[in-house]
Amino acid sequence: MALIVQKYGGTSVANTVRIKEVAERVIATRNAGHDVVVVLSAMAGETDRLIHLAQEVAEQPDPREQDVLLATGEQVTISLFSIAVKHMGHEAQSMLGHQARIYTDHAYGRARISEIRTEPIWHNIYKGCIPVIAGFQGLDGRGNITTLGRGGSDTTAVAVAAALAADVCEIYTDVAGVYTTDPNIYHKARKLQRISYDEMLEMASMGAKVLHIRSVEFAKKFNVPVHVRSSFVDESGTMVVKEEKSMEQVMVSGVAYSKGDARITLAGLPDVPGVAARIFTEIAQEGIVVDIIIQGSTDDTSLANLSFTVLRLDRQAAIRVLEGMKKEWTDLDISSDENIAKISVIGVGMRHHAGVAAKMFQALGNEGINIHMISTSEIKVSCVIDDSHTAKAVQILHDVFELDKPLQHEIPE
Amino acid sequence: MALIVQKYGGTSVANTVRIKEVAERVIATRNAGHDVVVVLSAMAGETDRLIHLAQEVAEQPDPREQDVLLATGEQVTISLFSIAVKHMGHEAQSMLGHQARIYTDHAYGRARISEIRTEPIWHNIYKGCIPVIAGFQGLDGRGNITTLGRGGSDTTAVAVAAALAADVCEIYTDVAGVYTTDPNIYHKARKLQRISYDEMLEMASMGAKVLHIRSVEFAKKFNVPVHVRSSFVDESGTMVVKEEKSMEQVMVSGVAYSKGDARITLAGLPDVPGVAARIFTEIAQEGIVVDIIIQGSTDDTSLANLSFTVLRLDRQAAIRVLEGMKKEWTDLDISSDENIAKISVIGVGMRHHAGVAAKMFQALGNEGINIHMISTSEIKVSCVIDDSHTAKAVQILHDVFELDKPLQHEIPE
Repeated sequence: MALIVQKYGGTSVANTVRIKEVAERVIATRNAGHDVVVVLSAMAGETDRLIHLAQEVAEQPDPREQDVLLATGEQVTISLFSIAVKHMGHEAQSMLGHQARIYTDHAYGRARISEIRTEPIWHNIYKGCIPVIAGFQGLDGRGNITTLGRGGSDTTAVAVAAALAADVCEIYTDVAGVYTTDPNIYHKARKLQRISYDEMLEMASMGAKVLHIRSVEFAKKFNVPVHVRSSFVDESGTMVVKEEKSMEQVMVSGVAYSKGDARITLAGLPDVPGVAARIFTEIAQEGIVVDIIIQGSTDDTSLANLSFTVLRLDRQAAIRVLEGMKKEWTDLDISSDENIAKISVIGVGMRHHAGVAAKMFQALGNEGINIHMISTSEIKVSCVIDDSHTAKAVQILHDVFELDKPLQHEIPE
Repeated sequence: MALIVQKYGGTSVANTVRIKEVAERVIATRNAGHDVVVVLSAMAGETDRLIHLAQEVAEQPDPREQDVLLATGEQVTISLFSIAVKHMGHEAQSMLGHQARIYTDHAYGRARISEIRTEPIWHNIYKGCIPVIAGFQGLDGRGNITTLGRGGSDTTAVAVAAALAADVCEIYTDVAGVYTTDPNIYHKARKLQRISYDEMLEMASMGAKVLHIRSVEFAKKFNVPVHVRSSFVDESGTMVVKEEKSMEQVMVSGVAYSKGDARITLAGLPDVPGVAARIFTEIAQEGIVVDIIIQGSTDDTSLANLSFTVLRLDRQAAIRVLEGMKKEWTDLDISSDENIAKISVIGVGMRHHAGVAAKMFQALGNEGINIHMISTSEIKVSCVIDDSHTAKAVQILHDVFELDKPLQHEIPE
């Protein structure tokens, strides 16, 4: 008998038929002898519908009130789900943020969970009543409703699992698990049995939408085993767990890519101390996150070049900031390119294996794929390339690192 | 400067355009120097949509969970409304049941407000921030969400006004006020300037939908002046107030009618003590409310007749109960009639004027309208007639009691 937190996403509770199917699944887990705590998202599309309503009233809706509005999405699913479970003859009780006592900071729209006072949840478990908790929402110290941002229900589920010291947090979604790469890009992509928190973090930050990045950070911090699996088929998915010794045997666990970036190139910058600091400070003040940065040198020793990537949706804003500097730096030339992709190989084994980067560059070079920028971390090597080469690059790297074969630690003992 | 509670119903906040119009109206009241507390209903049709969703999941949805579901309707309007007010440059804050601390008993779906701890509302008023309170919902002693039943937002508004000792509670609706009778039935119907709580209660219990009956009871109990008015035109409506001396000068203030009843007639009952008690006890146990009762006598002294009215939607259930008695009372004959209407004249002045009933019967008789049943209270005389005569009867009584002329206490001083 285990204590299991199960989180179902928007497509799993998209309508009342699906909600009843999920209720049956939860009851089956109960009947197998486990205690279950359920966390639900809003019905697929509902959050967008509500945002649209808010924007009919104001282009920039007040953040506090928008959170009150958005929180209704999960309130609808947890009540409908509890109605379904009770109709099937089992006990369940919906719990909103204020009832499950999920406390957050004050950052409307992107709040962070600070504490869960678990007494009311435990009380339901003790009574044999399935707690059905609204994902995505919490309460700040003053009793205001907050929301955690897109994908926040994953974080709620992991935080609840951590607070209850649950045996596992199961994240039910519309994919079967975490893959070595995007199966839509390469048919040889293989579902991973296990992946470490750090690898999952790198995958998530590269745009793999299977888990919300903050939920992985939470899982890592509190060492919550997370099982990513499909609510549409009855097979196990991918376990996201603490790094294991056997994982180090493998150089690369996955190939990820992201097409959501733009590259900005600055030429004609004065080559004096403090220029880069000034640029990135002003950009950061606009809330724009900069990813890869390359500082180049030129023949003219009094001028410097600088390239960096930002999210595509921040490109215009970043350029606006930079245009303002032209008054002072008259030689400044700004250009930008959206036709780029970032491609990464990820694996905790890199810490112990040399030559991953070299092997990657060579593989891409052999195919005539030009690398514009490079960035490395302890367990990741990323290259910026032309986005027209994305699929080809993913396939080459997947082949070169032999990701279609079972990883060593996945071979049954 | 006054403290005003304004409640807007579902048609007044039916979409985002209307919500913005209402926001402008509230701000205008603020700008006139008043403090305003707003109470809102769900958008017209939303509660029905949610009930339909629940019934897709279970024919008899769990009452606790249905309340969690229904409470989202008001949550959506208060957040959108607050977004509108803030966008217009004023301060507002939405307040849910648990934030406005509206406590109720445990009766899901028809909860009664037991207490409002007004500190958070006062705090907002003090800051110059318009409190925007979700109508219809509260919290029971254990933190569960409860709802007050159809029309419950009126009750929330009056209860908030009572708790704050507000100067007036304005109920904005889609009619201009309380009329001497239904303007759809008789074009001479006249909007009343003032009406007493007791008269309003009788009107409401006769199906005049302008105010929820429980809200009038609340207003009477705490002596809250209620102003019923339209949110679509800018003119005053009807004040519902404590009975005034001048109101006694008027015999009849209004003519009301109801078509929602059915008459059940029992013949062949044993004429022994306890029979009526037994019948009405068993019917009450099914939750069926009986209105007018007439016990008749027959030539056969060993048998008795009995007629009574119930709500049309309870007719079948009442007959089922009665059929069960046939085993014992073999002479029992049950018949029923849905083609009836109840027509009433209402006025606090009846307490001091004789002859209202006689005048009513005579007026109906002169037109050949047959009276099937009669019931009287201190301030009301009701007759059951064939429903085909309803409009004619309303018009005759409106004329006979000269309701098209301003009432004495309405004549400007």
